[in-house]
Amino acid sequence: MNPADSAALRLFDKHAASLQAARHACLERGWFSLFQETPDRHPGGEAAREAAAAAFRSQLGRAFDLDQPGTLDRVGDEVSPYTCEPLGIDYPLADVDALFAAARQALPGWAAAPPNARLGVCMEIVERLYADVFLNAQAVMHTAGQGALMSYAGSGTNALDRGVEALAYAQAAMADVPAEAVWERRFGSTTLRLRKRYRLVPRGVAVCFACATFPTWNAYPAMLASLATGNAVLVKPHPTAILPMALAVRACREVLAGAGYSPDLVTLCCDTAAQPVGKRLVKHPEAAIIDFTGSARFGAWVEGNAAPALCYTETSGVNTVVVESVDAPEPVVRSLAMTMSLFSAQMCTSPQNVYVPREGVRCGRGRIPPDEFGAALADAISALAADHRRAGQIMAAIQSPGTLALLDEMTESGRSRGRLLRESAPYPHAEFPAARTRTPLLVAVETGAQDLYGEERFGPVGFVITAADRDAALAEAAADARRGGAITAFVYSTDPAYLARAEQAFSASGAQLTCNLTGPMPLNFAAAYSDYHVTGLNPAGNATLTDLAFVASRFRITQVRTPEPA
Amino acid sequence: MNPADSAALRLFDKHAASLQAARHACLERGWFSLFQETPDRHPGGEAAREAAAAAFRSQLGRAFDLDQPGTLDRVGDEVSPYTCEPLGIDYPLADVDALFAAARQALPGWAAAPPNARLGVCMEIVERLYADVFLNAQAVMHTAGQGALMSYAGSGTNALDRGVEALAYAQAAMADVPAEAVWERRFGSTTLRLRKRYRLVPRGVAVCFACATFPTWNAYPAMLASLATGNAVLVKPHPTAILPMALAVRACREVLAGAGYSPDLVTLCCDTAAQPVGKRLVKHPEAAIIDFTGSARFGAWVEGNAAPALCYTETSGVNTVVVESVDAPEPVVRSLAMTMSLFSAQMCTSPQNVYVPREGVRCGRGRIPPDEFGAALADAISALAADHRRAGQIMAAIQSPGTLALLDEMTESGRSRGRLLRESAPYPHAEFPAARTRTPLLVAVETGAQDLYGEERFGPVGFVITAADRDAALAEAAADARRGGAITAFVYSTDPAYLARAEQAFSASGAQLTCNLTGPMPLNFAAAYSDYHVTGLNPAGNATLTDLAFVASRFRITQVRTPEPA
Repeated sequence: MNPADSAALRLFDKHAASLQAARHACLERGWFSLFQETPDRHPGGEAAREAAAAAFRSQLGRAFDLDQPGTLDRVGDEVSPYTCEPLGIDYPLADVDALFAAARQALPGWAAAPPNARLGVCMEIVERLYADVFLNAQAVMHTAGQGALMSYAGSGTNALDRGVEALAYAQAAMADVPAEAVWERRFGSTTLRLRKRYRLVPRGVAVCFACATFPTWNAYPAMLASLATGNAVLVKPHPTAILPMALAVRACREVLAGAGYSPDLVTLCCDTAAQPVGKRLVKHPEAAIIDFTGSARFGAWVEGNAAPALCYTETSGVNTVVVESVDAPEPVVRSLAMTMSLFSAQMCTSPQNVYVPREGVRCGRGRIPPDEFGAALADAISALAADHRRAGQIMAAIQSPGTLALLDEMTESGRSRGRLLRESAPYPHAEFPAARTRTPLLVAVETGAQDLYGEERFGPVGFVITAADRDAALAEAAADARRGGAITAFVYSTDPAYLARAEQAFSASGAQLTCNLTGPMPLNFAAAYSDYHVTGLNPAGNATLTDLAFVASRFRITQVRTPEPA
Repeated sequence: MNPADSAALRLFDKHAASLQAARHACLERGWFSLFQETPDRHPGGEAAREAAAAAFRSQLGRAFDLDQPGTLDRVGDEVSPYTCEPLGIDYPLADVDALFAAARQALPGWAAAPPNARLGVCMEIVERLYADVFLNAQAVMHTAGQGALMSYAGSGTNALDRGVEALAYAQAAMADVPAEAVWERRFGSTTLRLRKRYRLVPRGVAVCFACATFPTWNAYPAMLASLATGNAVLVKPHPTAILPMALAVRACREVLAGAGYSPDLVTLCCDTAAQPVGKRLVKHPEAAIIDFTGSARFGAWVEGNAAPALCYTETSGVNTVVVESVDAPEPVVRSLAMTMSLFSAQMCTSPQNVYVPREGVRCGRGRIPPDEFGAALADAISALAADHRRAGQIMAAIQSPGTLALLDEMTESGRSRGRLLRESAPYPHAEFPAARTRTPLLVAVETGAQDLYGEERFGPVGFVITAADRDAALAEAAADARRGGAITAFVYSTDPAYLARAEQAFSASGAQLTCNLTGPMPLNFAAAYSDYHVTGLNPAGNATLTDLAFVASRFRITQVRTPEPA
């Protein structure tokens, strides 16, 4: 065994208990994490946070130090949604063929390493990313526009949880294949004995597309699933959110090199909005796996064009809420207001369409008419927005200037097609006066305006939709999910029969359903090890992050049969 | 729970030990079978065999009784390769949309059944197919042209083993998802507790394409994998080999209906060579899974066009042999002659290209020149062919008249590009004087004639290829596999270092390697539960039958989250 493999197996031993606990969590699906989700409990303490802030400041205006092959030029024009100023960081613009070639060259040693050796190195990468989680949080804040806490937890520890979850599945899928077997059978008067050795062979080079608003969330699990199963990974960041992925790639390269493997197993493949390389990457003859998070339009192209490469996508969707009946409206309205405001609804799980029956939301013996419910929701959002410090924490910043144009367009359409329950407006951010902020726009419409709400309107745009009755509300919401895609769905009802129908409807539409949830947890909170994120049953994506199917195809099995004396 | 589900769960109990043993076998990968591979040990005894022969005779010249929806017309022009006479059986020609609609309508009850209920019904289907295995053998003989024993074992019990193997993997993949979980976490001062229920949801309607020469081999596992995970299946037989799949579909429908589920979960979708429906099935909006066994050309089209449907293919390949050095040539030559003659090389695992180094095959201190080796192989085949009874058992019949034209073409090309080591000719079949038979054609060529041997020549065509040296022999053989696809590869060498290089080369090319095998077992014998059939790493197919990846994507997971008191 080569020395790198021996050392990596010791890394595996170091992390074996964590992986075992993670696998157990995948099967039990209760709460589990290897990390501190609260920044002040991070083992690095306040010093780590301050060091990261300093490192981030010193990175601004400078070249990102990433020594990888095939650099043709430097690119980078990220702008912080908080300062609206360029970060001034430039990154290598690589020759795509050179990255694939370097990955191919790096592969044999990695592919030949025992699966546990690779898992050990991957867990070291996770450990490194956790050590660097404050710096990643700064990078996510100032590219994606997330708030400080979400940047730390959602894009840091929670994303790492999802990475470890993927590793636990990879370990399980690989362990399902024994290293060898003896097969013995009689043929006529002869007993034949064959020794069979099985080998796990990676697919080859994976391409991981990261999105602009939540880059690490799907990228960590995809990268780690591919690496653990022996593949190399080209990471293609969104041109407006390169830094988080550049940091991840650098960490991977350093850990790989430190463990004695080629750093070229993980490289960064930047592009620019003017000269995108996405299609070229997907159609590259060396691309064996495509992980894609991004727009529905490009995602559909990827799904249709990736073959013969494997393809795992998460795109976008129209997440819905049906409010049929409540014990009390206030907690529901508060939860909806908070969730629809969270990161200005720039999350794949943010609800957009709130359906209310025309006869009103049943509440005890009374009914809350749609207008009244819409007004209450608008008021609750406005109350959040009015508390600027809290708005800053919850709504955070708007990632893309394009979202401002969308808000203008939706405001106009909302006025002409329905009624504005509340207008979107900038709110003053307590810490960053120049921050690109907008409070949620809330539009009241009737069913039938699907051209308005039937697709994802990415950003703080919500619709309160009056349906003919409660059954129509459910049917329309489920149809939105089926047609427009959906990751989440929410229903409020005190009627068990109605809830049962909702469960059927959203299961058939492939949306994860949450019933009658109120309280401090954002409704759309997705927990690694517990929630199966994306079903693959509607246009919001074709894969679940993470289940066995997400990892089991990333490697293949070859075998050698040799007779031995019976 | 509905009564069908309760009864089906009792079927599961009946078969649970068998499934558990099968799962154990998948993990251990030693020999395992639930069935008697020798016809005279079948529990039905001689009576079952005679009844099947009578049933087959009485089916000839009559309509095949299959009561399924959407029949527009009757089709069928199968011709027995043994009698060269039409079977005279006609089958329903169905309206494709009607079959999909019937399947969609049948799905909800099946999808809602507990996974174990479905597994119980699937095991009953297997039991029924085993009871009917003699009739299936007659059907396979007189459509595919297989010999009696292969029709019984390879297309019967071995194919059923592979079906049960797929069920064992399906059970494992489904069992990886718990039915429910409790997730609990603190948010601020509140403890939130969510009960989460997980539901397995099938993809929808699967389409299973069966091939002409070995229809049940991949179709049984594909059909059973799809059914067990809750999907419906349209079975699309090759127009020249409908009967084996018609029997399987009828058995499935009867068992499903008997168990209280809709028989329309499995239907037969015939077509004709003149009016093929394959592309329409693949592009049908209701097609969720495609399992394809057939030609490389159509297989490549399927792989490129199936999305968004999942797609699992096995097509064709150029299986190679490298003879570098031997202890004694006779056993090697005998094994090669037998294997290259087996079912007239109409198997996806049959070797075609035999590479020999120009300096000769090392044998002790001597060398066997390529000419001499080629002549010995030709002689061994001729000896087999001369024993007409044995030839009938081994070579069986030629499925397609097109193969005769291919043999003529290859004979001509062989003469002009190389040298004929032996010519192909009919041999008299002891039992069926009119049988379409041909002994193997064996051509000697030099490397460089890839246009001749670089693709699969389906049928009894073999090449003895002289390579510059032993390393070139290995490199060329591995390149054939990589470029032309390959399922199997064979190497003979007494040099451990050479064997190690061969193992590397064929693992990288994605071909299953067998080293130094001689004796009574056909070299290409593939054992369920033990051999991973097809790697997915070269053009011979994109999937393994069977591993976790073959089943884990056939269902998806939806979930419902509901708060409960902490």
